[in-house]
Amino acid sequence: MGAGLSPSVRAAFAAIVGAANVLTDADARSGYERDWTGRFVGSTPAVVRPRSVDEVVDCVRLCAAEGLAVVPQGGNTGLVGGGVPLAGEVVLSTRRLDHLSAIDTVAAQVTAGAGVTLGAVQDAARAHGLRYAVDLAARHSATVGGTVATNAGGLHVVRYGATRAQLAGIEAVLGDGSVIRHLGGLAKDNTGYDLAGLLCGSEGTLAVVTAARLRLVPRPAHAVVALVGLPDPSTAVEAVAAWRAVLPDLEAAELFLAAGMNLVCDTVGLRPPFAARPPVYVLVEVAGAEDPTDRLAAALEGTGVEHDAVAVATDERRRAELWRYREEHTTAINTLGPPHKLDVTLPLGALGRFVDEVPGIVAAVAPAARTWLFGHVGDGNVHVNVTGLAPDDDRVDGAVLEAVAGRGGSISAEHGIGTAKRRWLALNRSPAELAAFAALKHALDPAGILNPAVLLG
Amino acid sequence: MGAGLSPSVRAAFAAIVGAANVLTDADARSGYERDWTGRFVGSTPAVVRPRSVDEVVDCVRLCAAEGLAVVPQGGNTGLVGGGVPLAGEVVLSTRRLDHLSAIDTVAAQVTAGAGVTLGAVQDAARAHGLRYAVDLAARHSATVGGTVATNAGGLHVVRYGATRAQLAGIEAVLGDGSVIRHLGGLAKDNTGYDLAGLLCGSEGTLAVVTAARLRLVPRPAHAVVALVGLPDPSTAVEAVAAWRAVLPDLEAAELFLAAGMNLVCDTVGLRPPFAARPPVYVLVEVAGAEDPTDRLAAALEGTGVEHDAVAVATDERRRAELWRYREEHTTAINTLGPPHKLDVTLPLGALGRFVDEVPGIVAAVAPAARTWLFGHVGDGNVHVNVTGLAPDDDRVDGAVLEAVAGRGGSISAEHGIGTAKRRWLALNRSPAELAAFAALKHALDPAGILNPAVLLG
Repeated sequence: MGAGLSPSVRAAFAAIVGAANVLTDADARSGYERDWTGRFVGSTPAVVRPRSVDEVVDCVRLCAAEGLAVVPQGGNTGLVGGGVPLAGEVVLSTRRLDHLSAIDTVAAQVTAGAGVTLGAVQDAARAHGLRYAVDLAARHSATVGGTVATNAGGLHVVRYGATRAQLAGIEAVLGDGSVIRHLGGLAKDNTGYDLAGLLCGSEGTLAVVTAARLRLVPRPAHAVVALVGLPDPSTAVEAVAAWRAVLPDLEAAELFLAAGMNLVCDTVGLRPPFAARPPVYVLVEVAGAEDPTDRLAAALEGTGVEHDAVAVATDERRRAELWRYREEHTTAINTLGPPHKLDVTLPLGALGRFVDEVPGIVAAVAPAARTWLFGHVGDGNVHVNVTGLAPDDDRVDGAVLEAVAGRGGSISAEHGIGTAKRRWLALNRSPAELAAFAALKHALDPAGILNPAVLLG
Repeated sequence: MGAGLSPSVRAAFAAIVGAANVLTDADARSGYERDWTGRFVGSTPAVVRPRSVDEVVDCVRLCAAEGLAVVPQGGNTGLVGGGVPLAGEVVLSTRRLDHLSAIDTVAAQVTAGAGVTLGAVQDAARAHGLRYAVDLAARHSATVGGTVATNAGGLHVVRYGATRAQLAGIEAVLGDGSVIRHLGGLAKDNTGYDLAGLLCGSEGTLAVVTAARLRLVPRPAHAVVALVGLPDPSTAVEAVAAWRAVLPDLEAAELFLAAGMNLVCDTVGLRPPFAARPPVYVLVEVAGAEDPTDRLAAALEGTGVEHDAVAVATDERRRAELWRYREEHTTAINTLGPPHKLDVTLPLGALGRFVDEVPGIVAAVAPAARTWLFGHVGDGNVHVNVTGLAPDDDRVDGAVLEAVAGRGGSISAEHGIGTAKRRWLALNRSPAELAAFAALKHALDPAGILNPAVLLG
C-alpha cells in the first residue's frame, strides 16, 4: 500500500496530464489521502489530475493495463471513505474538469464538468433567475462529479428529490476506458437503459463521471424561514407531515436537538435563538412566487410548536442566520474529534421513537461516547453523529445500523456505503440484490479497477 | 416460429401455473399475439399466466432451462411491438399479479402488482385524497408492470416526470430466476445501484417486473382545463413555455392540429369546440389547493391565443369533455387502419418548426400517406402518426426518425424502442452506449431469454 509508481508508469501519467498534474510528493498528496473529518486516512502512489475527458480515458486505460486501482475524487467532502485511497489506489482527481456551459434558459438546464462546485452552479444559475435544487452545507467544496457519483441529497430533497432526480444527462468513462456521453437534456428519452441513473449513486465503482447535464428550477421570489421549538421528536415528525400537506412549496425541514444547539452556540459563538430551551428544534423554509409568510404562520398553528420558541425570517441575511444553527452542526461536532457519521433513513412512522432511542443504543455499546442527531426530517433522514470513539471502533456503527435495519430503515440515506458501511450492506440488501450489483459492476468495469474497495469491496 | 411446446414442457408449465393458465389454443392465444393497433402480429406456442412471484420464478427458470425465449406482457397497450411474440416467444402474462396493497397514507405510497391497471391504482388512491401521477388514455388496460417496464410518460410528465420518477421500489425476476425485492419505499436510500431505475424502461429485457412501490401525490381540490386555438406550432410552443414559467402547477399541456380535431369530431361524433377553426389547439390543465382559474386566465393573456377560440372548464364533466378532443385522437386515427406511431422528443427550440416540416418529410417518401400529430408540448414530445402505409413499410419511419435525430431529438420519448425502432437506435446511441447496454443485458439475463428481439435484438 502506498508503494511508489514505477518510473515508466509515472512517465506515462505525465505524458497524459502533464508532469505538474502527477502529484507524488507526500505534501502534495496528503490533502487527497484523508477525508476532511480525518476519520479515513489512506495512502496513494500518485494523484493524477486530468483536464479533459480524453485525458480521463487515457488515465483509466493506463490503470487498466497496469492493473492499478483508481479512486475518483471530487471535492473530497464525502463522509463514508469512498473517495480516499484506503487501499493504496491511484487518486484520479476530477477537480480540473471544471467547464461550465452557458445556462440554457429555454430548457432550464446546464452542463457542468465533474469538477465544478455546487456553489459555482448556483452562482451561474442565479444570474438567470434559476437555481440548482441540490444544495448542502459543503456547497463550495462539493463537486458535481462527487454529488452525482453519490446521489447526494442535501437540504431540498423534500421538495425536489436528490441528485438523480436532477440529472438530464451524463458523460462518464467506464472501466474499460469507453466514453458514455448523453448530454442532450431531452425531457423525455426512452432509448435504452437509464445509464445516468445507474451511474448516479454508484460511488465511483462503475465509471468516472466527467460531466452532467443538470436540471435547474426557478429561483423563488420570496422565501421565509422559521425556526421553532417542539417538545419531542415524534411531535416534530407529525408537525412536519402536517406542514407538508398544506405547504407544497416546503423547501426544507431540518430537525436538531437541544444538545446540538448548545454545542453550536458554544463552539461557533452564536447566541441561542430563544430564551426558552426546547428539547427539539425544526427549521423550515417555504419559498414561492408570492410571499408565503402568512401561509407558513397559519400552518404552524396548533401543531405542537412551543409558543415562546418561534423565530421567523424573511430577509436574506436573517434567513442565513437561522440556517447557521443547523449548518454549523457539522463543524461544531468535528471540534470534538473525528465523529462516526451514520446517515440513515427511517420510515416516517418510526422516526420519532428512533431519535429518542439512539442515545441508549450508543450508550449500551460505548458508555463514554456522545451522540448528536440532526437531519432532514421530511425525508425520514437523520444523521447520527457519535464522538468519543476510536476511528476504527465500529461496534457503535454496527449497533445503530442494525437497529435501523430492524425498523425497516436504510443504513445509507444520502452519503452512500463507501468503505465505512460495506460490512453492513447485507442488512439492507438480499443475496440476490448483491449478486445483481456484482454482475453490473463486472459488466461496466470488467477489470475491477474502479474503486474496488468501495460499496461491494 | 409458433411451433407447439413439447408435451413435457407444457406439463411443466401446467404444474407451475395450473393447466387453465397455460393457453395453447389458437383462440385463447390470439389476443396476446397481436398488439391492439394490429400492426404487430406474432405467434406464441403458449401464454402462461402466473399468479405469484414464485410462479414467475419457476416459469423463468423453466424457460431458461429449455432455452425458450419469453415476452412479458401486461395490458398489451404498447405501441412498439415490445410485448407481443414476434419471434415465436412464450408469452408471460402478468395480468394475474393483481394484488394492490392498502394505501400507505403516511408515506403517500402503494405497492401494486404488475397486473394492476393504472385505473385501479387511481381508484384506490382517490379514496384517500391522493392520485398516481402517471395517467394516460389507456388507463383501464395499461398495467403497472408494463408502464414500469417502459417508463411510461403520459399526460402529467410536465409536472411530475415519467414513471421512473414515481418509483419508490421494485420487485422483479431476473433472467436467471433470482428475485430482486426492494419495496420499503424509503424517501432516501443510497444502498447500492438503482435497480428500480435501471429496470424501469428496460422493456422486459432485463427482468420481469412483478410489483412496484409507487409514490402518490395529493389530489388537488381544484382543477381547470382550457382548450385554446393558436395560429401556428411555434407560437404554441412559446406560449406553453410562458405559461409554465408562471404556473408551477401546470399539470398538462397537449398540442394537436386542425386535421386531428376534424377527424376526432367526425369519427367520434363530437361537436367542434369553436366556430373558428384555428390551425393549432393546445389543451392545458392547472390544478391546486385553491381555484386556479383566474391565474390561468391571466397567464393566457397576450400569448398568441386566438380570442375567439378559448374554452375553459372547471367542473369535472366539462373538463372531461374537453379532454376527449385530445384523448380520442388515438381511436380516431386507428379507424383509418393500423398507423405507424412515431413517438419523438425534440429540443423545445426545434419543436415548432419540426411540427410544420413533418408532413413534407412523410410526403417525400409516401405521397399517399397521411400524417397526424399530437403530443405533450411541454415535454417537447409529439406523436407522429402516419396512416396509409403497409405495416412493414418503414421508409417513412426511417425518414422521420432521421430528421428527429438530426435536430437533436430522441427517437423514443415514452413508448420505448421495442422491435419497431431497433434498427434506428444507433441514431441516438453511440457504439459505446450500445456496448454498455449489451453488457448490462448480459449481466442480468445471461441466457438471453428475456425479450431477446426487443431493444437490442
